[in-house]
Amino acid sequence: MTQIFDKLFPPEEYARRVSDVKRRMRAAGFDLILCQDPANMCWLTGFDGWSFYVPQCVLVHVDAAHPVWFGRAQDARSARITTDLPDGDIVPFSERLVHHPVEHPYDELAALIRDRGWGAARIGVEMDAHYYTARCHLHLLAGLSQASLANNGDLVNWARLVKSPAEVALMREAGAICTAAIARATEAMAPGVPQQQVIAAILQQLTMGVPGAGGDYAAIVPLMPVGEGTSTPHLTWSDRPLPSSALTMIEIAGVRRRYHAPLTRTFHLGPPPRALRDLAKVIVEGVDAGLDMARPGRTAEEVEAAWQAVLRRNGLSKDSRVGYSIGLAYPPDWGERTVSLRPGDRTALQEGMCFHIQSGLWLQDFGVAISESFVVGPSGGERLCDAPRDVIVVD
Amino acid sequence: MTQIFDKLFPPEEYARRVSDVKRRMRAAGFDLILCQDPANMCWLTGFDGWSFYVPQCVLVHVDAAHPVWFGRAQDARSARITTDLPDGDIVPFSERLVHHPVEHPYDELAALIRDRGWGAARIGVEMDAHYYTARCHLHLLAGLSQASLANNGDLVNWARLVKSPAEVALMREAGAICTAAIARATEAMAPGVPQQQVIAAILQQLTMGVPGAGGDYAAIVPLMPVGEGTSTPHLTWSDRPLPSSALTMIEIAGVRRRYHAPLTRTFHLGPPPRALRDLAKVIVEGVDAGLDMARPGRTAEEVEAAWQAVLRRNGLSKDSRVGYSIGLAYPPDWGERTVSLRPGDRTALQEGMCFHIQSGLWLQDFGVAISESFVVGPSGGERLCDAPRDVIVVD
Repeated sequence: MTQIFDKLFPPEEYARRVSDVKRRMRAAGFDLILCQDPANMCWLTGFDGWSFYVPQCVLVHVDAAHPVWFGRAQDARSARITTDLPDGDIVPFSERLVHHPVEHPYDELAALIRDRGWGAARIGVEMDAHYYTARCHLHLLAGLSQASLANNGDLVNWARLVKSPAEVALMREAGAICTAAIARATEAMAPGVPQQQVIAAILQQLTMGVPGAGGDYAAIVPLMPVGEGTSTPHLTWSDRPLPSSALTMIEIAGVRRRYHAPLTRTFHLGPPPRALRDLAKVIVEGVDAGLDMARPGRTAEEVEAAWQAVLRRNGLSKDSRVGYSIGLAYPPDWGERTVSLRPGDRTALQEGMCFHIQSGLWLQDFGVAISESFVVGPSGGERLCDAPRDVIVVD
Repeated sequence: MTQIFDKLFPPEEYARRVSDVKRRMRAAGFDLILCQDPANMCWLTGFDGWSFYVPQCVLVHVDAAHPVWFGRAQDARSARITTDLPDGDIVPFSERLVHHPVEHPYDELAALIRDRGWGAARIGVEMDAHYYTARCHLHLLAGLSQASLANNGDLVNWARLVKSPAEVALMREAGAICTAAIARATEAMAPGVPQQQVIAAILQQLTMGVPGAGGDYAAIVPLMPVGEGTSTPHLTWSDRPLPSSALTMIEIAGVRRRYHAPLTRTFHLGPPPRALRDLAKVIVEGVDAGLDMARPGRTAEEVEAAWQAVLRRNGLSKDSRVGYSIGLAYPPDWGERTVSLRPGDRTALQEGMCFHIQSGLWLQDFGVAISESFVVGPSGGERLCDAPRDVIVVD
């Protein structure tokens, strides 16, 4: 076949990842793990495609030479195109099982596990992965009466935490794409412009990317709360026009080959209140304190404490976590679900870990969010994006 | 509060829906159902927002005056903005439970159910909804030892099947948006153009919408397999240039206020082979036969049979289902997961049902897909989009 897909990483990188995962499995007491999180499937094998709305997974057994891909027949061909797995380790399920009210694709997954001689294994599943439904789990349990099934505690998510140099390069490209999209949003925004016109411009830029690095789809659509909508973070756009005086925020991610660099910026249509600019200054100062603290050997909670100290010095405080680890992601979320920058998280930072320090603060009448995506470098957090760091004023 | 969100439907429409759902619950033997599918949550209450990556749901009890919204505190405000639910029926969970390794938000959901006196109820859950994870289910089971938990069999999905006139109006707007985006894709496509430039143009148009109807995000990103990539349906775009001679397909949905009208069209860069055009003619003839059959009282399998008869007359055949019901949708899928246009599905069609007849066929060396979204009208299926129905040639 003509090559129609550029593989992301050489086979050695996948081999290294699988080997590290097997080491973690042995330490945790698992013979076999099942990964349904699309980001874990991709990270382990390279498998890519918008097929995560049907049951599918990657299996890693400590004694098997390769992971096994299991999924819908029409997507098995994607597995052959995007991965280096041998054909015998790409296993499709029967098409008639799609949306079958009684049977389930995971009946055939259980049979596959038994057929490979793994029917009595200690199996770790991703109990809280978005697409690992209750029904997936119950069909697996029913088909594997000899096995022990337990939560693998996001074992592969944790293995993804430190990015290789090749991954960091993609994160930096994602950051450049995000920077370009914030600039594009700034140009597109003006009083009277329908909200969806700004979003359309952002999506256009995020998809085009930057010279040499095309953009990919993000795990979350662009969010742009306006005015009182800024009081709640997850409302999406409407086709109402932007008002002539209002606070608005944009939260987007630049994405390069599924690697995400998210960013939040705060805008003001018309002259901003003095207090808004003052709050922005404090927040950026807090972020800089966090970035400075984000050195190898420091802990996640120390980064939060450094940011919190700046807030406290200014008579402010914030209760929820201030950030989370980032990297490879698929809808519906771009967080890795591992390290949080919050009190109690004593994970020691290492070079190559990436985070989104989501530094926002809501006061009585308004809020400001000015975040940064960063990679841990030898002397602190290195910003992946380069967007203006004050409140962006749109006249 | 200033109104910052235009509610989609009047309170009477939501009341009618909830009342119909309660009737179905009584028939199925459920006192209480939990809906985690974001489309079901929205259809029952109007709740909208990109918050489905954390556990949340809508509860309907047969004896309660209103549904209850349960979710993250920061999204409770979205619930107050987008729904008519009284404050007492909007119940946030504790923020510390987000990504908690031991406790889970559904511990508090179980407590809520017990507190309302529903602890011994016959409860129907959505066992196969994308975001109803194994862990959600196990925490609920643990917290509700007196209740009986069973699969509700997509009860609300089935209730969504027949669209109201207000919903059909949104579906038609979604169709107009999709038509505009296919035209825009056709303009953007040319040999040498990077793939992501075509996708960027499509996303721009889908988001802008058409005059009077802004576009929303789709449950699936635009898909555009090129050349040999057309052999597998779910690979997403790259930044490679389009070749000077190749087959390509586009599958997108126009979306208006979360209502989806999907469409597939087949393109050829450079002069298409004669056999491709011949196949396209057969496929469109098959679709027309299906549309003609899609009258009230006819069954889903009869629509498939009408399409299949045209194929057979031309010495062709296709095994998998030829379509599925559509309407309100959130990522990762725009199908309603109810009626399939396939043998064995004897659902009787009614006016207001909407389907995507996904009429594609793959032969040895190439394939053609030319689909239609339609609403069942008094004398057959009425197309929601109006895009060219032959192979679209791009020079």
